[in-house]
Amino acid sequence: MSKLRFRISMSLDGFVAGPEQSVASPLGKGGERLHAWAFALAAFRAHLGLEGGEVNESTPVVEEFFAHVGATVMGRNMFGGHPGPWDAERPWTGWWGLNPPFHHPVFVLTHHRRAPLEMKGGTTFTFVTEGIERALELARRAAGGKDISLGGGAKAAQQYLAAGLVDEMELSLVPTLLGAGERLFDGVGNDLHGLTLMRTVATPRVVHLKFERR
Amino acid sequence: MSKLRFRISMSLDGFVAGPEQSVASPLGKGGERLHAWAFALAAFRAHLGLEGGEVNESTPVVEEFFAHVGATVMGRNMFGGHPGPWDAERPWTGWWGLNPPFHHPVFVLTHHRRAPLEMKGGTTFTFVTEGIERALELARRAAGGKDISLGGGAKAAQQYLAAGLVDEMELSLVPTLLGAGERLFDGVGNDLHGLTLMRTVATPRVVHLKFERR
Repeated sequence: MSKLRFRISMSLDGFVAGPEQSVASPLGKGGERLHAWAFALAAFRAHLGLEGGEVNESTPVVEEFFAHVGATVMGRNMFGGHPGPWDAERPWTGWWGLNPPFHHPVFVLTHHRRAPLEMKGGTTFTFVTEGIERALELARRAAGGKDISLGGGAKAAQQYLAAGLVDEMELSLVPTLLGAGERLFDGVGNDLHGLTLMRTVATPRVVHLKFERR
Repeated sequence: MSKLRFRISMSLDGFVAGPEQSVASPLGKGGERLHAWAFALAAFRAHLGLEGGEVNESTPVVEEFFAHVGATVMGRNMFGGHPGPWDAERPWTGWWGLNPPFHHPVFVLTHHRRAPLEMKGGTTFTFVTEGIERALELARRAAGGKDISLGGGAKAAQQYLAAGLVDEMELSLVPTLLGAGERLFDGVGNDLHGLTLMRTVATPRVVHLKFERR
């Protein structure tokens, strides 16, 4: 069966976004420091349709993560456009422009019913109001035997982790502190719900910890 | 100059002790899971005067940490015996019995004046009421050119980290969650105060991240 796979960058003090998140600053104050290693990387930039970048020890980690993914599930904050109901005049279509970098079906957890959005390049956004298990079921069906990427943000990840539904987690630990912001593991409980550390790739800028369900 | 070196075990969600800490349970609920890797290790057990244990990839990390240390600084919670003033009838002498495993001068941060305690095996406890910098100064003088170990707990570590006085930090990251308890980096700010990740030793049970001041 296709796996639910999750990757995220986290500070040493457990934050995946800085404080004072807003539409203008979705990563929060200092949050960009968590992603500097990725934006420097050719493999990550290519995924976003950007040129340039380097090849280093993190390259295989990123390539491995993006391979064999057939669908994405994400939370409402990751998709954006909140607060408030959808604006019928100028509907929000996500952060990624007209040709989002997914190129496969994306299922957005939300409390607001909305018709699916077909974007350029093969990405469709389907809005799911029936909860995380239903979104995963729809994604699994759409993934065509490939895996499902859990795209974040923290709240969606917490729900899937706490429910024991995550099969793989690639935690990219950035050796810095944010001091405040949104924590990845808040409310997840006192164990990893069946996930076990299986592989570490250490670089000076980021340490990649890969967990798998045994 | 002799370095101030700090080692501690931390969960993936940033806790160095579990919830509900007490004299009967100084590590808090679940806190023993942070130290299982160390107690399994011959090099660590020998330091506590215990027999047995294994040799594995963590052995050199522990040996390196315990080598070349001439004095220890620790916080009041690490020494224990609080709350309340010292009991003159049955004075608290720490958690470690009559022959503590330090075998060198130990400086305890406290608000309570108390005469030094000379223990068996070369350990002396000196109580310092004039703050972290004074304790470090006394430890440096007593260390005889060797390094100083910052013995914890979290609150003492936070003060030395925030003041930029830690020269080396060996963070042993245990791939589990505690969900609640005492966090290492609370109040330390939004950077590592000059510390840089210099070396990683990864094992399935623990990932050792060594930070040094550049």
